[in-house]
Amino acid sequence: HRMTVYDIVKSRLKEIPHNEKLLSLKYESLDYDNSENQLFLEEERRMSHMGFRCLEIRRWVICGLIGFLTGLIACLIDIAVEELAGYKYSAVKQNIEKFTEFGGLSISLILWAALNSAFVMVGAIAVAFFEPIAAGSGIPQIKCYLNGVKIPCVVRLKTLAIKVFGVICSVAGGLAVGKEGPMIHSGAVVAAGVSQGRSTSLKKDFKIFEYFRRDTEKRDFVSAGAAAGVSAAFGAPVGGVLFSLEEGASFWNQMLTWRIFFASMISTFTLNFFLSIYHGKPGELSSPGLINFGRFDSDVSSYIPFESFLFFPYYFPGGMLGALFNVINYWLTIFRIRYIHRPCLQVMEAMLVAAVTATVAFAMIYFSNDCQPLGQDSTEEYPLQLFCADGEYNSMATAFFNTPERSVRSLFHNPPGSYNPLTLGVFTLVYFVLAVWTYGLTVSAGVFIPSLLIGAAWGRLFGILLSTITSSQSVSAIWADPGKYALIGAAAQLGGIVRMTLSLTVIMVEATGNVTYGFPIMLVLMTAKIVGDYFIEGLYDIHIKLQSVPFLHWDAPPTSHWLTAREVMSSPVTCFNRVERVGRIVDVLSNTSTNHNGFPVVAHTTENEEPGKICGLILRSQLIVLLKHKVFVERASSRLSQRRLQLKDFRDAYPRFPPIQSIHVSQDERECMMDLNEFMNPTPYTVPQETSLPRVFKLFRALGLRHLVVVDDENRVVGLVTRKDLARYHLGKDGLEELQLAQT
Amino acid sequence: HRMTVYDIVKSRLKEIPHNEKLLSLKYESLDYDNSENQLFLEEERRMSHMGFRCLEIRRWVICGLIGFLTGLIACLIDIAVEELAGYKYSAVKQNIEKFTEFGGLSISLILWAALNSAFVMVGAIAVAFFEPIAAGSGIPQIKCYLNGVKIPCVVRLKTLAIKVFGVICSVAGGLAVGKEGPMIHSGAVVAAGVSQGRSTSLKKDFKIFEYFRRDTEKRDFVSAGAAAGVSAAFGAPVGGVLFSLEEGASFWNQMLTWRIFFASMISTFTLNFFLSIYHGKPGELSSPGLINFGRFDSDVSSYIPFESFLFFPYYFPGGMLGALFNVINYWLTIFRIRYIHRPCLQVMEAMLVAAVTATVAFAMIYFSNDCQPLGQDSTEEYPLQLFCADGEYNSMATAFFNTPERSVRSLFHNPPGSYNPLTLGVFTLVYFVLAVWTYGLTVSAGVFIPSLLIGAAWGRLFGILLSTITSSQSVSAIWADPGKYALIGAAAQLGGIVRMTLSLTVIMVEATGNVTYGFPIMLVLMTAKIVGDYFIEGLYDIHIKLQSVPFLHWDAPPTSHWLTAREVMSSPVTCFNRVERVGRIVDVLSNTSTNHNGFPVVAHTTENEEPGKICGLILRSQLIVLLKHKVFVERASSRLSQRRLQLKDFRDAYPRFPPIQSIHVSQDERECMMDLNEFMNPTPYTVPQETSLPRVFKLFRALGLRHLVVVDDENRVVGLVTRKDLARYHLGKDGLEELQLAQT
Repeated sequence: HRMTVYDIVKSRLKEIPHNEKLLSLKYESLDYDNSENQLFLEEERRMSHMGFRCLEIRRWVICGLIGFLTGLIACLIDIAVEELAGYKYSAVKQNIEKFTEFGGLSISLILWAALNSAFVMVGAIAVAFFEPIAAGSGIPQIKCYLNGVKIPCVVRLKTLAIKVFGVICSVAGGLAVGKEGPMIHSGAVVAAGVSQGRSTSLKKDFKIFEYFRRDTEKRDFVSAGAAAGVSAAFGAPVGGVLFSLEEGASFWNQMLTWRIFFASMISTFTLNFFLSIYHGKPGELSSPGLINFGRFDSDVSSYIPFESFLFFPYYFPGGMLGALFNVINYWLTIFRIRYIHRPCLQVMEAMLVAAVTATVAFAMIYFSNDCQPLGQDSTEEYPLQLFCADGEYNSMATAFFNTPERSVRSLFHNPPGSYNPLTLGVFTLVYFVLAVWTYGLTVSAGVFIPSLLIGAAWGRLFGILLSTITSSQSVSAIWADPGKYALIGAAAQLGGIVRMTLSLTVIMVEATGNVTYGFPIMLVLMTAKIVGDYFIEGLYDIHIKLQSVPFLHWDAPPTSHWLTAREVMSSPVTCFNRVERVGRIVDVLSNTSTNHNGFPVVAHTTENEEPGKICGLILRSQLIVLLKHKVFVERASSRLSQRRLQLKDFRDAYPRFPPIQSIHVSQDERECMMDLNEFMNPTPYTVPQETSLPRVFKLFRALGLRHLVVVDDENRVVGLVTRKDLARYHLGKDGLEELQLAQT
Repeated sequence: HRMTVYDIVKSRLKEIPHNEKLLSLKYESLDYDNSENQLFLEEERRMSHMGFRCLEIRRWVICGLIGFLTGLIACLIDIAVEELAGYKYSAVKQNIEKFTEFGGLSISLILWAALNSAFVMVGAIAVAFFEPIAAGSGIPQIKCYLNGVKIPCVVRLKTLAIKVFGVICSVAGGLAVGKEGPMIHSGAVVAAGVSQGRSTSLKKDFKIFEYFRRDTEKRDFVSAGAAAGVSAAFGAPVGGVLFSLEEGASFWNQMLTWRIFFASMISTFTLNFFLSIYHGKPGELSSPGLINFGRFDSDVSSYIPFESFLFFPYYFPGGMLGALFNVINYWLTIFRIRYIHRPCLQVMEAMLVAAVTATVAFAMIYFSNDCQPLGQDSTEEYPLQLFCADGEYNSMATAFFNTPERSVRSLFHNPPGSYNPLTLGVFTLVYFVLAVWTYGLTVSAGVFIPSLLIGAAWGRLFGILLSTITSSQSVSAIWADPGKYALIGAAAQLGGIVRMTLSLTVIMVEATGNVTYGFPIMLVLMTAKIVGDYFIEGLYDIHIKLQSVPFLHWDAPPTSHWLTAREVMSSPVTCFNRVERVGRIVDVLSNTSTNHNGFPVVAHTTENEEPGKICGLILRSQLIVLLKHKVFVERASSRLSQRRLQLKDFRDAYPRFPPIQSIHVSQDERECMMDLNEFMNPTPYTVPQETSLPRVFKLFRALGLRHLVVVDDENRVVGLVTRKDLARYHLGKDGLEELQLAQT
């Protein structure tokens, strides 16, 4: 019977539309290229040198604020989770202790499962019903945002609130999740909010920072926010900067990077400061991040050169287990997209996972007979005696009956012999399954900590096994401390799942606080990436692909030199005249079948004729503002009394420009003319038709363009290259593949 | 009499041409933009996916090699310096001990001064007579190279040999210099050599890595080399990557960065491995860099949050003393450019400085009466007893009678009370003067270590003073350890001189091995930069300016929006036809008054007529190769039997293309025609005339261009923007300034 279900599932899976072979047209691009129209140039030319300096100072202040607020949020999350989890574990512990003697532990199990489910239910309801974009870690979304894709609602205040609330619930609910990934998203939202000096949701405009109300500036700040988030999550300010750059930056700028670093530093410092006060040790500054690996002293766990090569057995499992994780999660995600898309179902699945997690953990603890003596200086927060002798505690419980952060730290630092191999083996297996199942639930939660935990468990297991094998030999001293093998295993597993490179190395090094581990961690992450990439992409990339996001990678596919702009571009292009009839503009903008966002402005063209010479480029958002303010040539005389349209009007409308349908244009007005000269970007970047795809790609990516006009040798518009035209081409197993575009 | 000399010098200084207000035309640009001509596209299209993968693997291998060789060179320098300096100090110490009792210490002084001068003389002769570009730290040169300026001879094998030899001599010669800066240059040369798979100087071609023989690829590898150099110098692999990016990268690429990091890691690991063996502790891996700050344990020198603000007094002196250093060195450099440009004079000045350094040091030690007890666990290498009681040593001698690296470490780590304030004060003053005088000598030497040493000295001095002031109060415990104040002072001084930001923070943090110092170091460096920039630029930028190098900063000056491509561009432009007469090409290339390097190819133009439509862009180097191979239309029939010109022919000629004068073109051949279609870049980037300067600048900088064609709305060539056209505009005290172009 079971086989049949499996077969059905399998055959149904094949029917699922392969979303990763599609590119959705619903995602729009951010515009990292300033529209240097007349208004903008006038403003810039009016500004004095001192004015630019003030802007620069304002940027620094904003970055400081971003860091500070991100740190505070991290602090809030940490304290809330600590308190709630503390309450929960105390209650369950008391209950277990009560029933251990008299029997009836099933009541404890029910209590535990019910508490977990309740927490998770609240979190899942908030996410599923109020802001689905807050689900998951948010890293794929931020990656897309920094890449230049506008994901709807991703940097809104509401998303932040739900995200923070959701992550507290899901971690307190005992799911196999971390609170680190969501911090990155939170930091990004904080940045987007603070830098704009207003909240559109709260309808509150502080009338400050108005200069920064455009995509270019906002994206810079969001980079800083994401970095501050990483920094607060791992106590890794440099890692944060590198994360932002690795994921987002198209053009490296010294001052920008320096500001991002400032935000990161402030963030980890704020968190550290307040958490130290919370922990009652205000002077120590010992909590630079949400997860602290604890100190890996060179003296304690001595590290010798040969070890880098002896860590060799760790190189492959990381990539392979990571790939396995990703493959299973990939199928699971496809299954979820197909079958579990209704909010109630999503909440129920989350509750189910919470209950199962508690049950499995309970069963594991119950059936485990790995008792360890409870030392004087034990750091166990909730040691469970259960069926162990007095003065001993259940070792399995340290791994399960704990927040995952603490479990990771125990695996890194508990003295040799704290865990027996069987405990670790079973734990690895069970936690792997739970973590795979959990990621992708409609709860707000990250995958970093579960990955680290899985890796730390098998890393420590391998360490113990190797030490057993080599115990009779002279090298045995090397294997004495399993903690460092747990660290390497954790790095390998995490690298195998997320496939980050430089930034992850630095994050791991900063989290361990020991620079000497950099070399083996680098080697491990490198191998994990190479091995993993052989099988499947990184987890975040999978989820980005499954969302059909037009994501631009670093370079064009290497074998794409035979493609030219002519093949790649969209054509024909809808163009406007320098002075265009309002009716035509409204018609074009209202045409939902095309839904273009950028329109080349040409000299004297009529429809259905040969293309005109390019004069400029105007955006849908600009046209909308013009239509809203009825900037028509015929009204110019009456407008003389009115004030002239200013950049401020565009900024006030940013970023939520009203849809064309909401703007009423009367039949008379349709016959008016609109003069676009002042508002269009008169110098858009253009390429000739013969330009190769890699060359187009490089220009597009390096400058963060949204539209690139393709012209013939007479400078006539023949096509338009946008993000989706470039993202379409990707390198598959059999060479260059072309994705389909779809209105999904 | 003395005043008069001073006045004369002062008045003469004013007569010196202000080189920093000029831009030299002698520097050429690198071409980071591939010339995607037909040959190139054909090659790329022929290459399979596997071919690209092999290229990628080759890149990794090269980066590994770069790291390994750079590490080896660092190791060689370190061991050579240790041995030579050890020999010198032993000899002098014995001599001093011999004469201390009997009098006649002047003989010791002469011996010391003579030894120093001899070492320095050898080094200075090598640099001044054989390869002047090897003088100084080489960081300004590498900065220029990574920025895209071709500095002649800067990445040649000969330069490397002289550099390594020179730095050994100057450090062993007791000058106030470090061996860290030259490592960065050395790494860059190694990278340039290895990646090309041949040495033009040695006339040895290994016929490997031919694909990488162009500016684009070479510059990527040089970035890796510079990073490997930093990494080996400071044991700071992440700092190295950030240095390369901060100084060089225009476009951040994940795989490139990851490779750079790989090279850095290999480099520090290699150095560490071999140095550990040399020090007889092969297992410890305790020498990750040439300079090791020693461990700053959080426990030993406890660090509390308030301290970040208590370090406040350190923020301003760093910037101000740094600025003072730079101002004096600036005038000194101008003086040197004017008066000391003959090699013999340069060698003599270097010898003079060496002798003076020894004399001053001797005098300081002689007149100092700061005796300290010689502990059991003292780390003094050469403790000088001199006039101290038995069992004591002269404290001034630890600062002077030592390699500067050791002195820095002593200042950081010697227990409180090792130095009395007077010693430190006098030492700071004297060393400051010596270091200012030394930087810019015609020897191969860096400024990092002297800066650190000055800063560490006044930092420690301040620490002691503060601890004396506050000794009666409750906070005295905070000031107990002057070592950390030495560290902060060192960071402040170095930051004030070189004005690096993120990379320097990370380098300092990695060198201390303690992440918790990141926050105060960041604040200190930030303030030092702000304060210092108020007075004068960073030292490297000063030297770049004095060389009149057309250096492109990150952004166009903020107040330059009123300039457009029309004003900026060079015009008229020398263009070629698609099929051009050989005679005209030879004439244009031979015209030394223009010396253009890039020529737009246009459709049908004759001289002195209206400009033609742009069809492509061809470089001088390509034309030279074409002329050399006599690729003329008239010979096409006879060439059918010959092989067709291939990309290989261009690569073989790279990078030292012969001058036009060396190519003989007969009178008959002058009448032949040359078909440029196959060789020109058919899709050069173009901008319209109305494009604003910041927009032109951004395109130019982000893509690393060498030539940017300005066209009118008919696509006719009207001008050409090159590096010097953009570098000309810079922000002075009174707004935008325009530098003069000169054939210096």
